[in-house]
Amino acid sequence: MRDFSQDHRWLSINTATVRKSKGQDLPLTEILDACARRGIRAISPWRDQVAAVGLAQVSRQVKANGFELSGYCRGGMFTAADDAGLKAADDDNRRALEEARELNAACLVLVVGALPGALGGRAAHKDIALSRQQVHDGIGRLLEHSRAAGMPLAIEPLHPMYAADRACINTMEQALDVCDALDPSRSGALGVAVDVYHVWWDPKLREQIERAGRERLLAFHVCDWLTPTRDLLNDRGMMGDGVIDIPRIRGWVEGQGFAGYSEVEIFSGLDWWQREAGEVLDTCIARHRSAV
Amino acid sequence: MRDFSQDHRWLSINTATVRKSKGQDLPLTEILDACARRGIRAISPWRDQVAAVGLAQVSRQVKANGFELSGYCRGGMFTAADDAGLKAADDDNRRALEEARELNAACLVLVVGALPGALGGRAAHKDIALSRQQVHDGIGRLLEHSRAAGMPLAIEPLHPMYAADRACINTMEQALDVCDALDPSRSGALGVAVDVYHVWWDPKLREQIERAGRERLLAFHVCDWLTPTRDLLNDRGMMGDGVIDIPRIRGWVEGQGFAGYSEVEIFSGLDWWQREAGEVLDTCIARHRSAV
Repeated sequence: MRDFSQDHRWLSINTATVRKSKGQDLPLTEILDACARRGIRAISPWRDQVAAVGLAQVSRQVKANGFELSGYCRGGMFTAADDAGLKAADDDNRRALEEARELNAACLVLVVGALPGALGGRAAHKDIALSRQQVHDGIGRLLEHSRAAGMPLAIEPLHPMYAADRACINTMEQALDVCDALDPSRSGALGVAVDVYHVWWDPKLREQIERAGRERLLAFHVCDWLTPTRDLLNDRGMMGDGVIDIPRIRGWVEGQGFAGYSEVEIFSGLDWWQREAGEVLDTCIARHRSAV
Repeated sequence: MRDFSQDHRWLSINTATVRKSKGQDLPLTEILDACARRGIRAISPWRDQVAAVGLAQVSRQVKANGFELSGYCRGGMFTAADDAGLKAADDDNRRALEEARELNAACLVLVVGALPGALGGRAAHKDIALSRQQVHDGIGRLLEHSRAAGMPLAIEPLHPMYAADRACINTMEQALDVCDALDPSRSGALGVAVDVYHVWWDPKLREQIERAGRERLLAFHVCDWLTPTRDLLNDRGMMGDGVIDIPRIRGWVEGQGFAGYSEVEIFSGLDWWQREAGEVLDTCIARHRSAV
């Protein structure tokens, strides 16, 4: 297992972590400047943040600073209540692929979607098996484009508390079943993003990380699970402040040969988004060294 | 599958559902009176509610009204930071067994515990594998007493969002692994409580219900998953108000031969506990017929 205690060479910042500074939206350009000033070598930006300043400008800034992208957030949301919705999702995912390629991302992260309409509070149906089939089919269609673009797809299993409204792939085992079905040759074109927040609780985690192996471990995300957790979406903790044994999980992932970035992704409307972004980034660096 | 649309013969009320009426604590005696007036034949009381009025009085009222207990809530919380804590849990669980026997419950429901101290916001450690071992060992010890008392133990897998602070058994598969290890003969002394709120998301749910079979399906709990869910603990929905396909899951459970009560267990500080208890019970009856 790599020694992270001496530097932050393998730290990546998911830009949602500093989406807000003191409660105010922080433009991606300023986020990248703040990362560059701290010698942070990698980022993982969100599409809405990129769109707000323009892809071309972000691409220039990424290249000028020599940033690597540990991933691009995000594609997915494959489910829909009708064919028009499915087609719109396909089109949007192909655009996400093109953006990821322009930014030279390591992978396009997929949050796969769940019951259509549920995110807005009005689920169109209750058939999660149907949603799972739509996700399977949608990934299959996108994979053709992904292979052509040379841009790997990383399925991110989301915590089961998001099964209704954000992602109906909720365990590593389930994600890897999809990978095995759609990419049986383990080509590297399809794999998983392991976010400790979503999978730390899983009694089969170690076994499934070993099943994934190097070819399917495309990204590693960290934050922490707080007790109590006050909000289902926006109360993630800074590494070290919660109950996840992050080094143990990182050890399992690196035991399979993963040698990429450790990406910090913290949604925290109640705490970190209320602080000054520089303080947040400095804390990420410190905790990357001490708690990851 | 049984037809529930014509009556509420197979409805049980978990008394936490009407723990409060218009925001005020409602004594168990009044809850039982309100159930009896509505022809509700079964209940599942919580220990703290029983203790508040006294076991002897509750026992008399249960017998006088001819109530059956679909379960007794709850034993468990097997994990601890030291031997004294483990012993205290053992002692408390034996008392819970005796109470369940006095009330002639169908089973003692087990919420097994998680990282010691986490429920109070200060986890003693981060080793969830250790907690799982303590749970396994604790159930093993309690099972000897349970067999002697003729009182089955029902492990309730809790939703993974409670893995840190309430229960580190989080899937049916995991619960059934414990059952297979401790009761390989499928004697009926050890099984599971299937609460749709905790397990609805699980892609392996149907397969694991079939694995459980009649001998291990000891209780069936219903409520609903709301979108959005505003609180991790106390925002459960009334059946029909959320996204869980309850009849489908009940069909799987009854397909294995389960013929017991459908127990309504709703924690809802934001909604139902703010209403008058009679309205809540009337709604449970109506939704039992239309949405379960």
